[in-house]
Amino acid sequence: MQAEIITIGDEILIGQIVDTNSAFIGQLLNLNGISVKQISSVSDNREHIIKALDEAKERADIILITGGLGPTKDDITKKTLCEYFNTTMRFDETAYQDVVNLFAQYGKTVTPINRLQAEVPAICEVIRNYNGTAPCMWFDVDGKVYISMPGVPYEMKALMKNQIIPKLKSRFKFPFIYHKTVLTQGIGESALSELISDWEDSLGSVNIKLAYLPAPGMVRLRLSTKGENETVLHSNVESKIEKLKTIISQYIYGYEIFGVENETLEQTVGKLLREKNKTVSTAESCTGGYISHLITKVPGSSEYYIGSVISYSYEIKETELGVSKDILDTQGAVSQPVVEQMARAIRKKYNTDYSISASGIAGPSGGTKDKPVGTVWVALATPDKVISEKFQFGNHRERNIQKTANAALNMLRKELEG
Amino acid sequence: MQAEIITIGDEILIGQIVDTNSAFIGQLLNLNGISVKQISSVSDNREHIIKALDEAKERADIILITGGLGPTKDDITKKTLCEYFNTTMRFDETAYQDVVNLFAQYGKTVTPINRLQAEVPAICEVIRNYNGTAPCMWFDVDGKVYISMPGVPYEMKALMKNQIIPKLKSRFKFPFIYHKTVLTQGIGESALSELISDWEDSLGSVNIKLAYLPAPGMVRLRLSTKGENETVLHSNVESKIEKLKTIISQYIYGYEIFGVENETLEQTVGKLLREKNKTVSTAESCTGGYISHLITKVPGSSEYYIGSVISYSYEIKETELGVSKDILDTQGAVSQPVVEQMARAIRKKYNTDYSISASGIAGPSGGTKDKPVGTVWVALATPDKVISEKFQFGNHRERNIQKTANAALNMLRKELEG
Repeated sequence: MQAEIITIGDEILIGQIVDTNSAFIGQLLNLNGISVKQISSVSDNREHIIKALDEAKERADIILITGGLGPTKDDITKKTLCEYFNTTMRFDETAYQDVVNLFAQYGKTVTPINRLQAEVPAICEVIRNYNGTAPCMWFDVDGKVYISMPGVPYEMKALMKNQIIPKLKSRFKFPFIYHKTVLTQGIGESALSELISDWEDSLGSVNIKLAYLPAPGMVRLRLSTKGENETVLHSNVESKIEKLKTIISQYIYGYEIFGVENETLEQTVGKLLREKNKTVSTAESCTGGYISHLITKVPGSSEYYIGSVISYSYEIKETELGVSKDILDTQGAVSQPVVEQMARAIRKKYNTDYSISASGIAGPSGGTKDKPVGTVWVALATPDKVISEKFQFGNHRERNIQKTANAALNMLRKELEG
Repeated sequence: MQAEIITIGDEILIGQIVDTNSAFIGQLLNLNGISVKQISSVSDNREHIIKALDEAKERADIILITGGLGPTKDDITKKTLCEYFNTTMRFDETAYQDVVNLFAQYGKTVTPINRLQAEVPAICEVIRNYNGTAPCMWFDVDGKVYISMPGVPYEMKALMKNQIIPKLKSRFKFPFIYHKTVLTQGIGESALSELISDWEDSLGSVNIKLAYLPAPGMVRLRLSTKGENETVLHSNVESKIEKLKTIISQYIYGYEIFGVENETLEQTVGKLLREKNKTVSTAESCTGGYISHLITKVPGSSEYYIGSVISYSYEIKETELGVSKDILDTQGAVSQPVVEQMARAIRKKYNTDYSISASGIAGPSGGTKDKPVGTVWVALATPDKVISEKFQFGNHRERNIQKTANAALNMLRKELEG
């Protein structure tokens, strides 16, 4: 079973945005046993969209289209699909009520232009978009399925995960595919690959494919397998993961089973704090609020997260976190005693069980010979001790911030897991 | 003059990597007056590559290909191009010396497999790749140009900027293309489109195309035009933007000139603070550090950003920001007096010129009938006043956090711009 993805929008062709939608859709389809034959990005142009549809249907049975569904004049996908399938427009009452409800949430009333968004080609089935005003449309024509989705990533993602994939699975028969991802932190891709080289070689005998998915400061290892017997697939993967744990247990912070569990490091930390009924605070310098942001992105984090002092200046480190001027002057803000004082101080001040702190040189400037850009100290204070660790990251400011936050959260995770 | 981009590689189709190469190439071509008609991502498969080339040459005069040039068996682009142009392989001495030199840099000698990388189709012109072992190949056949580049982003980028673009400019004559993007905050896409409908209709007469590019809490309006006279293009766009300012000036926070300036809201705020030699602090509740994170993502932000108190609990609001218990009990943490007290307190405590604060119900839980999820108060304290505003966002926690942060930054931006 082959699929094709068509993304519509001039903003992709002029390089104003990177097409991340296609990668998301491609990954999700593949994880569900559907191969992607081609991805095409075309302009908001009638003839061009029609040509792309003609070419795609020669190669594939499932054609997924994103973009060009907005209420504005440059969006012509819906009109073009109507013409392509030689049908007329009808007004869809459910789609209209979804628009009305969405506007009501924002305390607004529907404008005539938004009312038009509830018009859809007569032959399509509307798939309700709970996160936006453009309905998703499903066409089943001559044995082939065409799905037109909005290009806004979070609308498209919710549609794909919750509605399109289940519907495709009931429309077509796909093989079983099982993926489980091992989440690691604290070891680089190449060091990891050397460490697990023999284990990796052993995967072929049970038809498991391994993919390395690196992110700043983390590597996710995805094990994928495909076949007719679901139970066998699960047990093959689980037994390989048990073996992997004997090699790299200290780096593993969690697992993702595709479509079942999806755990970020901050979610793991949140779950552990909640289970143990403990609280945490943070004192951030170089991360500038990013650690707190990750923690508070998790719904319900107010149960265990109390707050933070972001001390971007020397003065705030002194006045709010009691870091001694002497140490700042002699050792600098990026030093072991400073992060340890920060962690100790915020834990006491905000009266939490744990606290984490970070100070470093995120870059691009501010580096010295002794402390080049990417030098970072992270500390953790617990009810009975303070521990700290030095990291040497790279030159890229945003990645340094992300890596520092992940290192800090992982330090807390390891402590909580004992 | 039209170009097409073909990216070759299974890793794109399974969504393991996001195709950032196409956006880079598209942007660079557009800046130089070359429109991109289509971007196609295809698999490492002979027939599929040939089909993609056939389709692309029907639409375009310049075909840029990336990927599939590695030394391993799954990389078949070169062999396929050789077959496509009905030619044979020749050994290119210059390309070979480049491989030898590159290996010498790393203290290695060339392996037989890498020697093969210096073999190229006889009719191509080699464009030297100074950053990798796969030479870039330029084919000029029947008036059309085909360029095959390695897929490694930094190799491709250097080739495009330093060699391909100059060579294309000497081979073809291109029109001028001019894009300018107006960055707006605080108004939704459909409301905006109604407000500027007449203005939008007037763009056609000077051959300007308009695109709406929505992001959480923001809409970017891109004006694009093409022609022979660069000065006329600029003045047409500028005069339309002047008219637009008379309609929606309160929502505009900045501009992007394609490839020249690329300014985020936090960069605009940073630039303004630096110009005025002013400082800012933040007091965050529902945004949990995200406002601080945005501010400190900008290199050099330590010049104007002092720090933050993230008060995720009532206690911290009281003890660290002096919010009165009475008001918290009677009006709740998400209320005008609370955000105003937060802003006033942090400005004084951290001794800054400005401060911004936010308190809201990010969701998914915590909403009440009076204050549903998405209710947010934002305040700004300046040397002579405190102002505040209430917002009603949606149900999505992460987007509520992003929208709140953008609203707060925009409030500061408007104040700084007077």
